[in-house]
Amino acid sequence: MPTLDLSATSVDLTRTICDIPSVSDDETRLADLIHEAVSVLPHLEVYRDGDTIVARTNGRRAQRVVIAGHIDTVPINGNVPTRDVQVDGESYIWGRGTVDMKAGVAVQLKLAAELTDPRVDITWMWYDHEEVDADLNGLTRLAATRPELFSADFAILGEPSNGQVEGGCNGNMRVIVRTRGVRAHSARAWIGENAIHSAAPILARLSEYRPREIEVEGLVYREGLNAVRINGGVAGNVIPDLCEVEVNYRFAPSRDAAEADRHVRDVFTGFDVDIVDLAVGARPGLDAALAQEFVAAVGAEPRPKYGWTDVARFSALGVPAVNYGPGDPHLAHHDEERVPIAQIEAVEQGLRAWLSGH
Amino acid sequence: MPTLDLSATSVDLTRTICDIPSVSDDETRLADLIHEAVSVLPHLEVYRDGDTIVARTNGRRAQRVVIAGHIDTVPINGNVPTRDVQVDGESYIWGRGTVDMKAGVAVQLKLAAELTDPRVDITWMWYDHEEVDADLNGLTRLAATRPELFSADFAILGEPSNGQVEGGCNGNMRVIVRTRGVRAHSARAWIGENAIHSAAPILARLSEYRPREIEVEGLVYREGLNAVRINGGVAGNVIPDLCEVEVNYRFAPSRDAAEADRHVRDVFTGFDVDIVDLAVGARPGLDAALAQEFVAAVGAEPRPKYGWTDVARFSALGVPAVNYGPGDPHLAHHDEERVPIAQIEAVEQGLRAWLSGH
Repeated sequence: MPTLDLSATSVDLTRTICDIPSVSDDETRLADLIHEAVSVLPHLEVYRDGDTIVARTNGRRAQRVVIAGHIDTVPINGNVPTRDVQVDGESYIWGRGTVDMKAGVAVQLKLAAELTDPRVDITWMWYDHEEVDADLNGLTRLAATRPELFSADFAILGEPSNGQVEGGCNGNMRVIVRTRGVRAHSARAWIGENAIHSAAPILARLSEYRPREIEVEGLVYREGLNAVRINGGVAGNVIPDLCEVEVNYRFAPSRDAAEADRHVRDVFTGFDVDIVDLAVGARPGLDAALAQEFVAAVGAEPRPKYGWTDVARFSALGVPAVNYGPGDPHLAHHDEERVPIAQIEAVEQGLRAWLSGH
Repeated sequence: MPTLDLSATSVDLTRTICDIPSVSDDETRLADLIHEAVSVLPHLEVYRDGDTIVARTNGRRAQRVVIAGHIDTVPINGNVPTRDVQVDGESYIWGRGTVDMKAGVAVQLKLAAELTDPRVDITWMWYDHEEVDADLNGLTRLAATRPELFSADFAILGEPSNGQVEGGCNGNMRVIVRTRGVRAHSARAWIGENAIHSAAPILARLSEYRPREIEVEGLVYREGLNAVRINGGVAGNVIPDLCEVEVNYRFAPSRDAAEADRHVRDVFTGFDVDIVDLAVGARPGLDAALAQEFVAAVGAEPRPKYGWTDVARFSALGVPAVNYGPGDPHLAHHDEERVPIAQIEAVEQGLRAWLSGH
């Protein structure tokens, strides 16, 4: 069994761990390697729960930071093993997981080994099952079994953010908007009531909807309200009695669950609305002193994070949290997923600069 | 093996043949019984093609009428064997096939045996696979192998028409109206283009559409334009790149295929429209002398037929054709399918009055 060499460059470490497939539910091999590699480091106290590995420095500092990254990926689609590619003169590592988010994990692993005496205590977390149902997420399990591990003054998630600091995240809600009608033979449509026709105002309101931009603690969050699925119909000669539109609402972290719910029900007044999923966002938390020092040290311009990430989990616990990792989030899950080598190096340097400065 | 007793009443014959299941593709047992029963009748010349039976009188009359009925049914749903039921003081035979259209076939079988010397020559046709794809229809096959059997001056389909004469039938067209967009993560919807939102005007036009009523040869045909299915979406967090609306257009028999096509494309101007199915209707043909005599003899008030039936097949061959059978078409395919006994008797008397009068 190969071992992970944490003294390799973060770029080489990225290649190595991307070439060890770890699609959600198949993380054990990579988790074993990480566990083995960090267990030999005397400055870290290591805890394992399933395929989630936690490694903590000794607790002599006044403040503690959680730095976390998930080790699973979405399914591979002919894009493992990785390849080195050049695009428009820039060098990339191409392949599944390079962006989301093994380059970030590689940087974290390297620094976990290297920084034996950081300026703040660090709780490193490498976890499983982030790309699937939240119920399965390694952090959900850990929060239930070892909640004290989440205690910290600040948290950094290594999610891809183009090497910039992306603060907080939008909330995420999915609802089903439903119309009902009465079935009839389509040769005698006037006997029935067409549920698909009744859905016309739902699509009209979505199409006319202008999403808001909302400033939260200095960052502007762009919201979104989108149909992601529509379904209706029985047969080619039957007037349909049901039409369902699944709508995804992405809402600013300044709104709580009740406000998000109210807003969606306002938009769809007159229609039956069922919530199927709801996760509030995370405030950027950039007003925390530690966050400001971090942003200054890494030399980044904070931006809002639009997608929902596990920062919300920390935010809900009162721990300010940001996303900071190499890779363009637009390429996450993409078959052409690839991370610029320069961004891996920049994030490594940024984190090192902040964590090692006393 | 039981034999069919064609001297029984048409009501008893209805019970008997409904209790012999003959869902499309499983008509052989019933076809065998019909074949056996009519083959012994000396006044009929019998021809069989698969499960379609044709029985013709001798050809001494100046005019010939086709009288046809399909022997298959839609699937049984706990409604065979038949039962005698009373609803609001009226006596019915309840069960699959009673309306669509074994009561009509029972009347035809009885009269085929009884009328040894009718006033016009008769070509009786009992055929398979009407309830499924037109390709499989017994008449499609017969028209290919024995087209001369369709030669006639008038045709009567025993399709349920509440014991009234329903002239011709509407045409039937199905199209897919399609919108395309660009996929994106729904957290960054502005990168993509939502194909479901783009379908808003399709539903709006359908919802606002007022179907026309068109008089053809004295009968008023009611048209209809209806979404029968809608489908779009990739996943709960992806902006959809495709939405398809399946639209069913029922159009008056005065319109040909080109006109129907033009009308649908006009309604959906600006959208991609694909025809998936198109069958023109049938003019009522009630101006034919034979048709007028028939209507007068059976004492019925002609009405338009809205659903597409095999009358269109005869109409396309230049043979005026009407629907005349017991049973309410609204109860066809219904789990509560049931035929009023009085209508079976009335249709039997109507047909006998006309066919036996010299």
